[in-house]
Amino acid sequence: MTAHRKSNGDTAAFVRRHIGPSVRDVTAMLEAVGAKSVDALMAETLPASIRQASPLDLGKPLSETEAIAHMAELAAQNQVFTSLIGQGYSGTILPAVIQRNILENPAWYTAYTPYQPEISQGRLEALFNFQTMICDLTGLDVANASLLDEATAAAEAMALAERHSQVKAKAFFVDKDVHPQTLAVMRTRAEPLGWNLIVGDPLTDLDKSDVLGALLQYPGSSGALRDLRPAIAALKAKGALAIVAADLLALTLLASPGELGADIAIGSAQRFGVPMGYGGPHAAYMAVRDALKRSLPGRIVGLSVDSRGMPAYRLALQTREQHIRREKATSNICTAQVLLAVIAAMYAVYHGPEGLTQIARNVHRRTAVLAAGLRKLGFAPDSETFFDTLSVDAGAKRAEIVARAAAEKINLGVGDAALRIALDETTTPATVEAVWRAFGGQLSYAELDATTREALPEALKRTTALLTHPVFHAHRSETEMLRYMRKLSDRDLALDRAMIPLGSCTMKLNATTEMMPLTWPEFGSLHPFVPREQANGYHALFARLEKWLCDITGYDAISLQPNSGAQGEYAGLLAIRGYHAARGESHRKICLIPSSAHGTNPASAAMVGMDVVVVSCEKNGDVDVNDLRAKAEKHSNDLAAVMITYPSTHGVFEEHISEICDIVHGHGGQVYLDGANLNAQVGLSRPGDYGADVSHLNLHKTFCIPHGGGGPGMGPIGVKAHLAPFLPGHPATKGEAPVGPVSAAPFGSASILTISYIYILMMGGEGLKRATEIAILNANYIAARLDAHFPVLYKNARGRVAHECIVDPRPLKTTSGVTVDDIAKRLIDYGFHAPTMSFPVPGTLMIEPTESESKAELDRFCDAMIAIRKEIAEVEAGRFKIEASPLRHAPHTVHDIADDAWNRAYTRAEGCFPDGVSRTDKYWCPVGRVDNVYGDRNLVCSCPPVSDYAEAAE
Amino acid sequence: MTAHRKSNGDTAAFVRRHIGPSVRDVTAMLEAVGAKSVDALMAETLPASIRQASPLDLGKPLSETEAIAHMAELAAQNQVFTSLIGQGYSGTILPAVIQRNILENPAWYTAYTPYQPEISQGRLEALFNFQTMICDLTGLDVANASLLDEATAAAEAMALAERHSQVKAKAFFVDKDVHPQTLAVMRTRAEPLGWNLIVGDPLTDLDKSDVLGALLQYPGSSGALRDLRPAIAALKAKGALAIVAADLLALTLLASPGELGADIAIGSAQRFGVPMGYGGPHAAYMAVRDALKRSLPGRIVGLSVDSRGMPAYRLALQTREQHIRREKATSNICTAQVLLAVIAAMYAVYHGPEGLTQIARNVHRRTAVLAAGLRKLGFAPDSETFFDTLSVDAGAKRAEIVARAAAEKINLGVGDAALRIALDETTTPATVEAVWRAFGGQLSYAELDATTREALPEALKRTTALLTHPVFHAHRSETEMLRYMRKLSDRDLALDRAMIPLGSCTMKLNATTEMMPLTWPEFGSLHPFVPREQANGYHALFARLEKWLCDITGYDAISLQPNSGAQGEYAGLLAIRGYHAARGESHRKICLIPSSAHGTNPASAAMVGMDVVVVSCEKNGDVDVNDLRAKAEKHSNDLAAVMITYPSTHGVFEEHISEICDIVHGHGGQVYLDGANLNAQVGLSRPGDYGADVSHLNLHKTFCIPHGGGGPGMGPIGVKAHLAPFLPGHPATKGEAPVGPVSAAPFGSASILTISYIYILMMGGEGLKRATEIAILNANYIAARLDAHFPVLYKNARGRVAHECIVDPRPLKTTSGVTVDDIAKRLIDYGFHAPTMSFPVPGTLMIEPTESESKAELDRFCDAMIAIRKEIAEVEAGRFKIEASPLRHAPHTVHDIADDAWNRAYTRAEGCFPDGVSRTDKYWCPVGRVDNVYGDRNLVCSCPPVSDYAEAAE
Repeated sequence: MTAHRKSNGDTAAFVRRHIGPSVRDVTAMLEAVGAKSVDALMAETLPASIRQASPLDLGKPLSETEAIAHMAELAAQNQVFTSLIGQGYSGTILPAVIQRNILENPAWYTAYTPYQPEISQGRLEALFNFQTMICDLTGLDVANASLLDEATAAAEAMALAERHSQVKAKAFFVDKDVHPQTLAVMRTRAEPLGWNLIVGDPLTDLDKSDVLGALLQYPGSSGALRDLRPAIAALKAKGALAIVAADLLALTLLASPGELGADIAIGSAQRFGVPMGYGGPHAAYMAVRDALKRSLPGRIVGLSVDSRGMPAYRLALQTREQHIRREKATSNICTAQVLLAVIAAMYAVYHGPEGLTQIARNVHRRTAVLAAGLRKLGFAPDSETFFDTLSVDAGAKRAEIVARAAAEKINLGVGDAALRIALDETTTPATVEAVWRAFGGQLSYAELDATTREALPEALKRTTALLTHPVFHAHRSETEMLRYMRKLSDRDLALDRAMIPLGSCTMKLNATTEMMPLTWPEFGSLHPFVPREQANGYHALFARLEKWLCDITGYDAISLQPNSGAQGEYAGLLAIRGYHAARGESHRKICLIPSSAHGTNPASAAMVGMDVVVVSCEKNGDVDVNDLRAKAEKHSNDLAAVMITYPSTHGVFEEHISEICDIVHGHGGQVYLDGANLNAQVGLSRPGDYGADVSHLNLHKTFCIPHGGGGPGMGPIGVKAHLAPFLPGHPATKGEAPVGPVSAAPFGSASILTISYIYILMMGGEGLKRATEIAILNANYIAARLDAHFPVLYKNARGRVAHECIVDPRPLKTTSGVTVDDIAKRLIDYGFHAPTMSFPVPGTLMIEPTESESKAELDRFCDAMIAIRKEIAEVEAGRFKIEASPLRHAPHTVHDIADDAWNRAYTRAEGCFPDGVSRTDKYWCPVGRVDNVYGDRNLVCSCPPVSDYAEAAE
Repeated sequence: MTAHRKSNGDTAAFVRRHIGPSVRDVTAMLEAVGAKSVDALMAETLPASIRQASPLDLGKPLSETEAIAHMAELAAQNQVFTSLIGQGYSGTILPAVIQRNILENPAWYTAYTPYQPEISQGRLEALFNFQTMICDLTGLDVANASLLDEATAAAEAMALAERHSQVKAKAFFVDKDVHPQTLAVMRTRAEPLGWNLIVGDPLTDLDKSDVLGALLQYPGSSGALRDLRPAIAALKAKGALAIVAADLLALTLLASPGELGADIAIGSAQRFGVPMGYGGPHAAYMAVRDALKRSLPGRIVGLSVDSRGMPAYRLALQTREQHIRREKATSNICTAQVLLAVIAAMYAVYHGPEGLTQIARNVHRRTAVLAAGLRKLGFAPDSETFFDTLSVDAGAKRAEIVARAAAEKINLGVGDAALRIALDETTTPATVEAVWRAFGGQLSYAELDATTREALPEALKRTTALLTHPVFHAHRSETEMLRYMRKLSDRDLALDRAMIPLGSCTMKLNATTEMMPLTWPEFGSLHPFVPREQANGYHALFARLEKWLCDITGYDAISLQPNSGAQGEYAGLLAIRGYHAARGESHRKICLIPSSAHGTNPASAAMVGMDVVVVSCEKNGDVDVNDLRAKAEKHSNDLAAVMITYPSTHGVFEEHISEICDIVHGHGGQVYLDGANLNAQVGLSRPGDYGADVSHLNLHKTFCIPHGGGGPGMGPIGVKAHLAPFLPGHPATKGEAPVGPVSAAPFGSASILTISYIYILMMGGEGLKRATEIAILNANYIAARLDAHFPVLYKNARGRVAHECIVDPRPLKTTSGVTVDDIAKRLIDYGFHAPTMSFPVPGTLMIEPTESESKAELDRFCDAMIAIRKEIAEVEAGRFKIEASPLRHAPHTVHDIADDAWNRAYTRAEGCFPDGVSRTDKYWCPVGRVDNVYGDRNLVCSCPPVSDYAEAAE
């Protein structure tokens, strides 16, 4: 609508839309917190020593209209060819009804990870459908609710195999016909752990190898469709595990990995409707035999019951069992790709088994006809059997063919030797004829179609049913599909209805304008391995975004590759590891981590082969500098790094951050500054200035990429110059590099980088600084309003919190029996998502309002908390026992209020519409409280609390 | 996402998505209705004599992907210039958050007109905001909830003035500085009614004229800003009415029409965020002094109370009082522009008074600087005082300037003498400098800005407050705005949640793909009066759409101009009138209309000066052919036309349609076949083949333009060749024509024609026919399932209904006291919008399922109706009286179920979750039953029942 318009020049317009409180609100809030001005409040909040010297200058901010026009210009610099490159990425058709009503619908994309199951039943059902679909297609017993990408899923599967294999050798076999980026990511993963990767042909080379397991690709990256049964049987005979990387669309026609005997299947769900997006985001999958289910990484949705015994979905706890392996942790998986898994599942719901099978048949048909034509032209494909991909040795004509294809606006796969041609559901007969022309022939598709047979070997054809669940049969018309998606989204509470005050999770506005270019074909339809000149718009964006992120953080170089915060940590530690190794100090393996750290920190350290040493915290929550100094001294010779979050996970700007950096540097260590809380610093202080060497930046938090119900995320890392050579490499861009890739695609989830880019573009330096200031003001306002009711646990010496605050209801447990869970669930009755529970301090609530919430909404939340405190006081006063209180019965559902036999100690209205809750517009959560016992353990992230690591390293 | 993709060739794919029932469902339904096949059912439904001879061939249908690619090609043929043409259309910025969450959100665009207020509180509030905004800006007492466009609003205002003026002269004064299209539409309107239009300068020419009222433009179309007080005072002194056409943005800075003394204000709300769309759709407004409020045309939202005495919005009844004037009816207003009025209101909510005022100041500032520069270049604007538009006499340089502007991609307004330059909120300093260059000068905006004063006369500056209601102050951040829109939409029930089985209203699928191109800038950003070569894409679309519509209807020519069905009727009758006049038979003024006709029919006839003669119907609902013959004979000399709906509004294909056409033709009359039910004929029969001369086609019904909560609509007309010369003209395209324009823009609401175009593109002839067949099957299935419970009132001789059926609960009123209202409101408890109530037969329900509803949804609806019949049986059996029954208490709300003191004769569950209604996913309507008395009168459309006209004509 607006792409051709220009702004009337109000450059601060977007800042005012992004930030919740008005100028008048800010004045009132400053008064409430007792600060003279925003500047004064900042001076009381941040140590003067770390304040950045000069204002952030990112150029003149653009209005929303100008930003869209600018993005249209960038888009025009990308060229959308028909990419037949394959290698794990396919053209696909995202049904319009799914695009508009999920990918472009804030009810879906602004939702948080479903840790509070009562208000997440819609997306939990969608993820359950995803798992069902994966189990059906792979023929395995249990699937998770998505992983970051196929390559990291392969690495995770290898780690899983390593734990469960009966073979003790630290060697792992990789099919030479896997996608090159998969092999590269596995190499990165294996090397620090000392695992040896053996690459070969599984049908001939397996016998010679003593391996703990193997990864086989099905069909192969080259397109070859081999019967893997003998290879799998050979592996199992010696007690090794068989992992199959499988193409989901092919599996609709082929015998499943489970039927072939595989223990684990992994792969990508991208071609189920998810745009290629120059690399991502897409959902990867992993499925395992039942015996391995308790070690399955990532999140698993399970069906449980609620307080009334009715079915309710929840995240099953076993998903994190594997991580509680102390020093042996080999996975830091946290973020999933929920939004993309939901899209893939909806694609299957929309098409159903007949539709998916028909798509697969069409693709295969076109491929078979293509092969027949190529043979006719003298280019016989390497394999007689294939699904959708052909490899052809073009010999001396190779360059000429590639050039002619390019003239047809077609990209072929340019492998080491052969040319690869991978078809997909968007391939038309015209495309096939164009490929033939590139190979030098004028052939008629229709003619060859009449005489061509399919090329699926009989022995590999699927004979089992798939997607038999009714959900895959009931929503075939667009009307039914639309209503199903609406019904599910209505069950959930997302940012489009209420504040989500999750500490450490930063649920700020995901502005509509930021979300728009993402689904333009010029950003969505690019294969990650197209020739660079077809992606000039993307690269201009990357370059500018990197420059901005450097300006914001004080770092010298950025890698956009990591797909999540945890992956960023991993990449950052790999950089530190590479740096030490390059200086001949590979023995530096000790990683100091304060006990208040995010749980992913020690897991990431373990993944790069470091040993974690936990540093204690003081009573006020600060890092115990003396303990840190002592441990740094003790491990001086072997000190690799400290990992520290700033401001701390306690929500405070500690005074000693520079000193801590100095201590660690003094002992030869590097400072990994966890960027989880960068949103409290942007425009005010820069990690690169006060001593940090590397940080990851959670773009999905600080820079507005929506949480998507639990992913996608993005975790680029910034480094000082001395670490720049050790940023992640990638075979598609850099060739050999000191550190290998951590993601399948060279620029991670490139398409959603547009979101952060536009955000920065529209905010400008001053706007970003203002956002930080108001985030801090909002948090201090909540702290000021709640302190008398629920004590605020940590403040700095001047009584200020940073961008979030922890309130402590633990004393109330003694006086009333109320649990933090009761408060969290009771907040649902008030129409709120609970704050972060029990992280970083068990039994507390961490509240982060962000800058985007208005004073009215902050007040509504504080009023709810204060009303809950009054309800607790009623328990204390003996009006009812905690077991009989509305707190314990929360959340109240329609099922509750509909009971004619209401025999509670409080009225229906007290239960369902406490203090000020609108009856008319009430959000009703669809189920009552789910699994109390499990609920207690639902921490901020699926990784274990850091204390579990303390014992191990000491 | 998909614009660059090509299909894999499944051309029937979209048809399967559009149509609800699967092949298996169809088999089961045929069995239920007792038909051997779909063909057999059609043979039993339509008279063989009218079946079309050859299948509909519209070319190969495209898949959704191909259709989007095709639309991208058309879009590329439009050129988006910066249009400074003015004349009532301005560039504007639709805030992205409103675009995505209203214009592109099915919860808003698939909603129906809010005749059932309980399930429409969201959009009623939005419309209430619109009215509040209009009252504030115009300074008048009562505003309606939008009209079709500014020109028709002017014509309506003239008609209103004619009724209320104390001056008896049939003469009306029109400011020579009104927009040309406004004058043209008023001429069309005045001529058949014998009203004389006097065009002149209101400041000098009014005294000489004996006029009943005057229309003055403020600011003038030329941009001149005149003090209209003396002119208005002069009018009022003689008892004439003063109508002011005012620019809403200008009014934020100017004394309001009300303050100037005006009785009525009209205008367009387009520049409040609504894309120009090459002419529409946009919302026009009308506001009046309190004394005129009962005559205000269109719909008015009023605040009332529900059954619990709580506030509830509703459509106020007085809106249609004016129509019940029998032969004197001078308005047939039915459709409004709800979706666009909602957008304009949200634009005001988003910006608030400060924001709107600032936008206006910016626009005026740029205009003042532009004027200063032009003066410097020797082109002094005609008026010293202006808001945003300048007229400049460029003399001999005119052509050169226009060409230079075009080279800058700028369109200037090319009036009769002067050049017009109209700025808007999208105008940048760079645009102003480009205009100067076109006028031959290189000037610096910044330099002139520093020395230029504003050009608003002090006497005309606004001194009164505006938009003081809290709603215009509370939603300033995007987060708050998003949540407000979500909250309102959640209060409403639209097609995205349930079937809306409204007889005669055809709530079929509005597919996402159909909705996408509409908001592309190449379709949205074109001014209606750009040079034709900038709109080649549009014109290619028009030409093909016209061709298709001719193929479908059997007509020879189409006019796309009418903006609603009623306006199509009016245009069609104007064509008939023009035809008779051209043949020297202007005395032919009798229009026969069966008593079952849509209420708009007689109103339209009255508007073109015809006299209505009502033809009676037989007991079976068919037109009484003998009565028709008798009346045609009686009026043979003066017979102008018959207006007949086919299949009839009783939902039956009458056998005698050809005979009726022959009778009327035999007496020299023309056949106007109301196309309201064309969806029952597409692909099966063609009005042009069996005797009709002209029809309007409700694109928003048959061809998938969504209802938008009560508009936009589109009512193109098709005519046989002999009427083609009398299709509506337009000054912008044709110059003088026998019949003038009926709409402000030459192609009506051009941008939404894309929707119908894409629908036909993707369905193809065979798919359209299939849709018709399944619509008929679905209706017959419902009739078959319900007949035993609620008798189906009308069927044809073979027991078949057409695409809808009327069920008759009237006998139950005797046995139980239940009213049709009780049933309608009780359906809300079951999660359904009620069928059409009391049209065409009072006390009955007319049900139209459309082809898009699946068998599962039809069954859910039938189950609900049958369950309601059982509830009625419980009243009959004496379980409770009707007053105490869940039927009378319906709809049940959260407020009801929350009562601890439940003292009803049935349980909470019986009330709120009858038979099979999901508790978890229940739709709760926000208010209880609104105003029973008024509710009874809420007929299908805001026009009066046709019986009111019978007496008048006889």
